[in-house]
Amino acid sequence: MMDKDSVKQLDAILRPQSVAVIGASTSPDKMGHEILKNIIDSGFKGSVHPINPKADVILDLPCHKSVKDIEGPVDLAVIIIPARFVPQAVQECGEKGVKGAIIITGGFAEAGEEGEELQQQVIAAAQKFDVRLIGPNCQGVNNPHHPLCASWPLLTYAGKVALISQSGTVGAAMMDWFSEEKLGTSSFVSMGNRADVDEADLIAYFNQDPNTEVIAAYIEGIKRPEQFIQAVEQLQKPLVILKSGRTPKGKVAAESHTKALAGADAIYEALFAKYDICRAYTAEEFYDYAKALAYLKPPQGNRILFITTSGGAAILATDQAEQEGLDVSPLPQEAVEAITPLIPAHAIKANPVDLTGDATARMFGDVMEVTRKYYDTLGVIFGDPVEDASKVVTADANELIIFYGGADVERHESELMHLKGIPVFPTPERGIKALARVLERKTLDAPQRPTLTVPAAGRQLPLHQAFARIAEQGLPCTDFALADSQSSAVQIAKEQGFPVALKISSPDILHKSDVGGVKLNLGSAEALEKAFDELLSAVKSSNPQARIDGVLVSKMASPGLEVIAGMNRDPQFGPVILFGLGGIMVEIFQDVSLRLLPLTREDALAMIREIKGYGLISGYRGRPAVDEEALADCLTAVARIAESDPEINEIDLNPLFAYPDGILVADARIIVRD
Amino acid sequence: MMDKDSVKQLDAILRPQSVAVIGASTSPDKMGHEILKNIIDSGFKGSVHPINPKADVILDLPCHKSVKDIEGPVDLAVIIIPARFVPQAVQECGEKGVKGAIIITGGFAEAGEEGEELQQQVIAAAQKFDVRLIGPNCQGVNNPHHPLCASWPLLTYAGKVALISQSGTVGAAMMDWFSEEKLGTSSFVSMGNRADVDEADLIAYFNQDPNTEVIAAYIEGIKRPEQFIQAVEQLQKPLVILKSGRTPKGKVAAESHTKALAGADAIYEALFAKYDICRAYTAEEFYDYAKALAYLKPPQGNRILFITTSGGAAILATDQAEQEGLDVSPLPQEAVEAITPLIPAHAIKANPVDLTGDATARMFGDVMEVTRKYYDTLGVIFGDPVEDASKVVTADANELIIFYGGADVERHESELMHLKGIPVFPTPERGIKALARVLERKTLDAPQRPTLTVPAAGRQLPLHQAFARIAEQGLPCTDFALADSQSSAVQIAKEQGFPVALKISSPDILHKSDVGGVKLNLGSAEALEKAFDELLSAVKSSNPQARIDGVLVSKMASPGLEVIAGMNRDPQFGPVILFGLGGIMVEIFQDVSLRLLPLTREDALAMIREIKGYGLISGYRGRPAVDEEALADCLTAVARIAESDPEINEIDLNPLFAYPDGILVADARIIVRD
Repeated sequence: MMDKDSVKQLDAILRPQSVAVIGASTSPDKMGHEILKNIIDSGFKGSVHPINPKADVILDLPCHKSVKDIEGPVDLAVIIIPARFVPQAVQECGEKGVKGAIIITGGFAEAGEEGEELQQQVIAAAQKFDVRLIGPNCQGVNNPHHPLCASWPLLTYAGKVALISQSGTVGAAMMDWFSEEKLGTSSFVSMGNRADVDEADLIAYFNQDPNTEVIAAYIEGIKRPEQFIQAVEQLQKPLVILKSGRTPKGKVAAESHTKALAGADAIYEALFAKYDICRAYTAEEFYDYAKALAYLKPPQGNRILFITTSGGAAILATDQAEQEGLDVSPLPQEAVEAITPLIPAHAIKANPVDLTGDATARMFGDVMEVTRKYYDTLGVIFGDPVEDASKVVTADANELIIFYGGADVERHESELMHLKGIPVFPTPERGIKALARVLERKTLDAPQRPTLTVPAAGRQLPLHQAFARIAEQGLPCTDFALADSQSSAVQIAKEQGFPVALKISSPDILHKSDVGGVKLNLGSAEALEKAFDELLSAVKSSNPQARIDGVLVSKMASPGLEVIAGMNRDPQFGPVILFGLGGIMVEIFQDVSLRLLPLTREDALAMIREIKGYGLISGYRGRPAVDEEALADCLTAVARIAESDPEINEIDLNPLFAYPDGILVADARIIVRD
Repeated sequence: MMDKDSVKQLDAILRPQSVAVIGASTSPDKMGHEILKNIIDSGFKGSVHPINPKADVILDLPCHKSVKDIEGPVDLAVIIIPARFVPQAVQECGEKGVKGAIIITGGFAEAGEEGEELQQQVIAAAQKFDVRLIGPNCQGVNNPHHPLCASWPLLTYAGKVALISQSGTVGAAMMDWFSEEKLGTSSFVSMGNRADVDEADLIAYFNQDPNTEVIAAYIEGIKRPEQFIQAVEQLQKPLVILKSGRTPKGKVAAESHTKALAGADAIYEALFAKYDICRAYTAEEFYDYAKALAYLKPPQGNRILFITTSGGAAILATDQAEQEGLDVSPLPQEAVEAITPLIPAHAIKANPVDLTGDATARMFGDVMEVTRKYYDTLGVIFGDPVEDASKVVTADANELIIFYGGADVERHESELMHLKGIPVFPTPERGIKALARVLERKTLDAPQRPTLTVPAAGRQLPLHQAFARIAEQGLPCTDFALADSQSSAVQIAKEQGFPVALKISSPDILHKSDVGGVKLNLGSAEALEKAFDELLSAVKSSNPQARIDGVLVSKMASPGLEVIAGMNRDPQFGPVILFGLGGIMVEIFQDVSLRLLPLTREDALAMIREIKGYGLISGYRGRPAVDEEALADCLTAVARIAESDPEINEIDLNPLFAYPDGILVADARIIVRD
């Protein structure tokens, strides 16, 4: 939990007044030397205290044997000593009243059982004295605004993006790119093993940091989902996440459609979609998206005009723009006339405006001035060595600047633009993709927090009980009743009206059709009697040990659009609601949408509309549209069941028939905790 | 057509002995000065002749008034004078016996009708004297091996990749990147308007160029499909194509840029797949794929071991590798034991081998030596500033080198590796994607050339004629006969056996169901009689003018898997064969595969297997597999019809039913040329 006090305490790490370097070294090739030097060279304005029992002076600073020997308060300790000495060092920090510690040293939980034990000792010592910890096994912290570089390499450009990384390298690469492009960062925190401070803490911290406008986090997994969700719910700034570990190594056993399709990564997708988190899939997207969200002003709409020296570059940009759903709309006639006197006769006055290779920066500037009012964004592509390009562009003016094919001029002008805080993208495609992420971002309404529960192994409810649970939520189910004999089955069928279906009801049989446990479309008492016997004998011969509750008789549903609705309780994120086309569609095309709780009616409608096969729902080739409202009711009802009954781990309504005027649940599978 | 003579003639452009620069200028900021200077500064060893009627000496070279005044032979003229003077200049080149000309000047076909007329004059002059032309409206030619830079900027690194570009900028950006990375190129040709020499000529030329190992082409459309296909059929080297104009708007942009005739993108996909052309979708992929194909030795298989200093970078690499179908298989126990003494105790001995941030280049080298024999590729990720990394890597040794997060050390070591001819990729994802393209490349069997024909508007064959055309290829069709009356329909149905279907047969009705022209599942003579009347009156009331051939009576097909097979004759590429799942699947999910002719049996089987819904064909949830061989027969039969009868523009077999032991064509639509 990030309350105000703990935020203040992270200030001890990111904005300390005094720093002790425990393990400072006299030897220039040691990390304990480099970090001390970087703290000094980064321009840190507070006091710095090297700690090393064997030295008197390091880098002209007096050395102490222990942090406890320092006169005056110490906010932060940076620890670079062998792992086995770290618990004692943290203990001494606590005794001294140090508020935060960065443990660079590796050899803890990442290195096996012994290391795990050491890490527990470190945590215990820190908790005893309320010392907040970064690491262990990390690359430190760098805040170029404070300034303080308790990390490596020494990078000092101060910018707008806070980097949080579970991997030192991924974070360092981002730092390096932002530094190389003269944009800088607002802070870098390498989280290492996350023994204490994690992404939830840091997102909350940087949400309140005045220097940070965008947070970019590399994670391999979320450590505390509840706190993470709390942090992103309160977040007022864009968050870009590069989440690795996307592809499953092994296949999840297809116990149910919902479970098979709602794998770990799909859940992260759903979580990120819900909280408007911008997901990057590659290191380069991670950089581009963070850069765009920090330095591009959000446009009012998606209309873009390309202005370029290069027809080829503009076509590449247009391809990408169409793919991202931007509107590359034609240049209005009025604008055509306005730019005509400004540009060469052979220039192409359309969208893109192609100034041809003869263009000067001045021409770009003139055309930009005149056309600005007709579009939400000007996509300016300097596709040649355009000298002085940096002189005609403006920060925060809804200009997307791409510089491509300009060689040394490109490198020089791009640097000048970056120094002005104007982001420049190196290819048309990267620029457009990044702009699209800025356009996607919406304002958040702080949705409610989902309930998170512990998962458990499960037991399948008998069919009639499952139907009852569904029906009590007001969802129409197929007429059904449990028959214990051939004659009672016939009696039930006569009451329901033929044709009917028979299905075995047994807690031990998951896939009823696979064992001959289903008979459909029985049109008469004779057909039913025959089918009843066949069904029972097929089931008994294939599953002699199965407990049999009876045979479920249900009226055949009239044909409708077959869809699926379901819920699976994820160990980390709680209930995940699923919707998709049923039958073959779900198995072959995996055309489903997912959402986490809480599920609003709008969420439910959005789920229905975002599947690829939505055309089948909205009406197809003269077939009538089916009842979206009833489907949305069904999804919110499934969500209510999941919320109200934590014992239920899984719900599968499949098939669910959708009609022009309602729906019908034709089969239901509910797994409850054992 | 590229015969040996025309290849030799392109030598006049790419390997001239003497060059005239028509429009050479004394003014350093003019293109006519810069190109002359670049020719000299690139180290060109032949004679250089500036042509300018108003100057005596330019850049210390004696100037002539006309190319005809030069003593001795001239191989190449580079023309940089206003467009209106170019036809005369080309005429003079012809009279002088110049073999090739590069026309840099713009203002030709790309600039409207007047320019188009000028371009025609240029072409006429060139053809009269057999002068081969590059351009007009282009950025020239650069061959760093010869050497000769008749282009800008001056880039002189000689490498293995030949660049061909319809856009000066896209080509120049590639040149610049190859130059910045110290890899260089084998040649660069900016094709401009392609008045004469086009991509087909240049692919043929570079196929024979000893300095070229990979050809990389940026195109907006293929100029002469037949010659292009001929060139790629004979191609022995990898070809990477960045084809823009992918999306509908992008296509419009392509047409207005250089008047390229851009075909539908799906057809390009099919063409590239057929001829094993590596397609790039972005400028960056274009570079990475060309670089990988030129500098990475093709591995024997897809097993890869990652060796890294960074766990995070290795997870990103693994994600991408799984997505690309690489096999990140576990480190054999034998290898674990072999590397244990070589690396720190806390290193992770698995796949990836994580040496942790403490690793030295030496450790990398030791581990690479020991593990090489167990894998097809070593994926070496220097995920930190690893000094001397360049000393432990080897060219052509199936090492994929990624350097990421190494800041200045990364830049320095990468340059050293590039100078050794070892490609280094800047992120895990880019490296893996590029390697995957190298793995995909297969040896070509020089397939036969397709027949290309001119398209025409069409007329639909009556159903019974369409069925007859299909049946004569040995494809089983539904029993069918044309009835001219209710009673003859009943007679036919009795012979076929009930249930039957009725379908209107009229050349004027394309969508039969939409006008009530189809009645299915008629189980008795009575039902048939009633349906016959209903059908005719429905059709007559909706289409009173339609010519009616009769009513087709056909036996109902027994239910099978509904698929679609078809052919559409493309104006550029000739017949395109299509296969997909039928009914809703094809309309909603557009899950189809396409191929150009000629279609081998293997092609046909590959088409069937590459659709997403292949699971339905190979057997699904206990349903039997359907007859792939019969489906392949059907596709090759469709291809045969298309080949043998150029009058047929379109074939649509839909539905086509597939069974475990055969297929049945249940409906057929054939459009013939009017």
